[in-house]
Amino acid sequence: MPLLPLIEYEDAGSEVRAVYDDIMRTRGTDWVNNFWKVLANHPETLARVWEDVKNVMKPGALDPLVKEMVYVAVSATNNCEYCIHSHTAGARAKGMTNEMFAELMAVTALANETNRLANGFRVPVDDVFRGYPD
Amino acid sequence: MPLLPLIEYEDAGSEVRAVYDDIMRTRGTDWVNNFWKVLANHPETLARVWEDVKNVMKPGALDPLVKEMVYVAVSATNNCEYCIHSHTAGARAKGMTNEMFAELMAVTALANETNRLANGFRVPVDDVFRGYPD
Amino acid sequence: MPLLPLIEYEDAGSEVRAVYDDIMRTRGTDWVNNFWKVLANHPETLARVWEDVKNVMKPGALDPLVKEMVYVAVSATNNCEYCIHSHTAGARAKGMTNEMFAELMAVTALANETNRLANGFRVPVDDVFRGYPD
Amino acid sequence: MPLLPLIEYEDAGSEVRAVYDDIMRTRGTDWVNNFWKVLANHPETLARVWEDVKNVMKPGALDPLVKEMVYVAVSATNNCEYCIHSHTAGARAKGMTNEMFAELMAVTALANETNRLANGFRVPVDDVFRGYPD
Amino acid sequence: MPLLPLIEYEDAGSEVRAVYDDIMRTRGTDWVNNFWKVLANHPETLARVWEDVKNVMKPGALDPLVKEMVYVAVSATNNCEYCIHSHTAGARAKGMTNEMFAELMAVTALANETNRLANGFRVPVDDVFRGYPD
Amino acid sequence: MPLLPLIEYEDAGSEVRAVYDDIMRTRGTDWVNNFWKVLANHPETLARVWEDVKNVMKPGALDPLVKEMVYVAVSATNNCEYCIHSHTAGARAKGMTNEMFAELMAVTALANETNRLANGFRVPVDDVFRGYPD
Repeated sequence: MPLLPLIEYEDAGSEVRAVYDDIMRTRGTDWVNNFWKVLANHPETLARVWEDVKNVMKPGALDPLVKEMVYVAVSATNNCEYCIHSHTAGARAKGMTNEMFAELMAVTALANETNRLANGFRVPVDDVFRGYPD
Repeated sequence: MPLLPLIEYEDAGSEVRAVYDDIMRTRGTDWVNNFWKVLANHPETLARVWEDVKNVMKPGALDPLVKEMVYVAVSATNNCEYCIHSHTAGARAKGMTNEMFAELMAVTALANETNRLANGFRVPVDDVFRGYPD
Repeated sequence: MPLLPLIEYEDAGSEVRAVYDDIMRTRGTDWVNNFWKVLANHPETLARVWEDVKNVMKPGALDPLVKEMVYVAVSATNNCEYCIHSHTAGARAKGMTNEMFAELMAVTALANETNRLANGFRVPVDDVFRGYPD
Repeated sequence: MPLLPLIEYEDAGSEVRAVYDDIMRTRGTDWVNNFWKVLANHPETLARVWEDVKNVMKPGALDPLVKEMVYVAVSATNNCEYCIHSHTAGARAKGMTNEMFAELMAVTALANETNRLANGFRVPVDDVFRGYPD
Repeated sequence: MPLLPLIEYEDAGSEVRAVYDDIMRTRGTDWVNNFWKVLANHPETLARVWEDVKNVMKPGALDPLVKEMVYVAVSATNNCEYCIHSHTAGARAKGMTNEMFAELMAVTALANETNRLANGFRVPVDDVFRGYPD
Repeated sequence: MPLLPLIEYEDAGSEVRAVYDDIMRTRGTDWVNNFWKVLANHPETLARVWEDVKNVMKPGALDPLVKEMVYVAVSATNNCEYCIHSHTAGARAKGMTNEMFAELMAVTALANETNRLANGFRVPVDDVFRGYPD
């Protein structure tokens, strides 16, 4: 059970309904997932976070599927159960196969391993890796 | 300064040299970065981790550049300074532009934000997100 | 099911009962929550941690409600389910409204987002931010 | 050295200058800190994150100083060096004394301790802590 | 429910069965735990991770029980529910008593507390602690 | 530079000096490391944390060297630079060799890897691993 109630469409005010409508329109679905129904308790946060997700996750220099997989990798690193479930579903809907998911987790897990070796041994950054290219 | 000395090629035993040679051959470079020079204090770990990195990061269901970017995303989430530097350099070498790097960090950061909203509010996982597709 | 049994008051030795009594007296309640019942398997840890919590969380330079909200923010960042539940309940008991809780999570989540931007881009600390004021 | 160059005001385009101007106006300062100068490499992210920070950190149900202290608590938990420095400076500017900073860190650290006791022992959430009040 | 199906022995191919057989032989058991049954969806990852676990966790400069307890400490720090359960069971099987488990969690939790004090106050590393002994 | 000044013995009040004396007596050294000199800005926290460290790290069901190594494992997982340095030094002083340190980091890193595989795939806990033995 969540720490704030789920706000259903029929119980929502016009500000919240406008966001729900935009979520469904943008995604081409007829339902809204629980994350937004909890955020709807604070309409300002609902509107702000949805605006951010919509803008950051839209096609750009990176492919939308790549973005979803990065989301899953971060969520697995942080152990956000909800986010792992929702963004794995999102990535599958955009074409991620079981093989791709398995490889994604292999990279994510390996990065978490080598992160600790580098941090634990205090490996000094090679000069050639510093800064930005011209 | 690292917590174990950097083992240079000329001071390394044959077991370590074989791994260094394989690293340079696989990458088409003539130098080895500090991470491996520290791991070389424990040749078994050097050989094991290099074998893992080589296998996990090779082309497969996911593109090698995508894998490098996932590595950067995880390293930024964990704040592994060394890994952020080395894998950003690796991703640039595979074609990541500043625009792509900026978008990658935008997704990574947003995921860290919404991870805490989902966890903090204890949002229940929607039934439709559970489990695996047939 | 926890990894150590819950020690109920009637099954506890005098050392544990003394701590339980102090918890109930300090909080003005007639029950003890599960966290302490698990720690009671190691009376030394029970006594030490309760002493720490009582001292750190008492009124001081910071208001007790502010302290509870900081606790919730850290617990959401770490995804400690138990701690999110217990300290959200504690904060509500001290006056936190749904509006305040929503804002607290908005700040917590935003901090987790910008933390990764700063770490991922390796933003150098401005000189003016370094050190301590006179 | 950061992984993207610092964009100074005189080298910035009009879109970036408009955000810099708003940052200085909102804060009543005549300079912009490095975080924004790095984000300016991606004007869309600069504008989005500044908009978020401005809105989330403005006075609301929570006091701006409380918000800055929550920011510091999360940044210390995640070990974001930049954010610890910048938000500690921000909190001092809003009135945080050394005594308050010390207490803030004491609560933050204690929360990180008890988070691991609760997680490590898998303490079950008390029924009374679940859900939300009417 | 996991995000990939559990692969049972009778449904597994010969490559997966060979790993399962090695797991059971190495551990002297007649069953395989769920972790490996999920990894079996990607036989290459199953084989690689099992090889790593078998090699890293075997007796060496450190006692196998010490290694299991370090595993539990890290898993409690990261809040990996599965890993806390499986490695606590593993440590108990190797001789960890409730008293030892309680002390292990006390150290783990204290380290998480003082980690945040050191990070939050930006305590400078003493010269004498830097580098490696001759 | 730290965010609070280092309090040297000669500038400390009697309350702080008493703790410094106890630290040096307990450790058989004639100096105090920076961690305590920063905590000394808040004598109550200095006394409380030192009392905790002294009690938790003393010999008990676990060997003091094992405890120091667990401390290093947690600090590497959290990337606390100060703590990695100070507790690696502490562990070396208690007998940890380079070989042991290398194995410790191998276990720590592997645990961070498999933690993410278990969390990312949402592996269900085996019934046999749940709860506590009689």
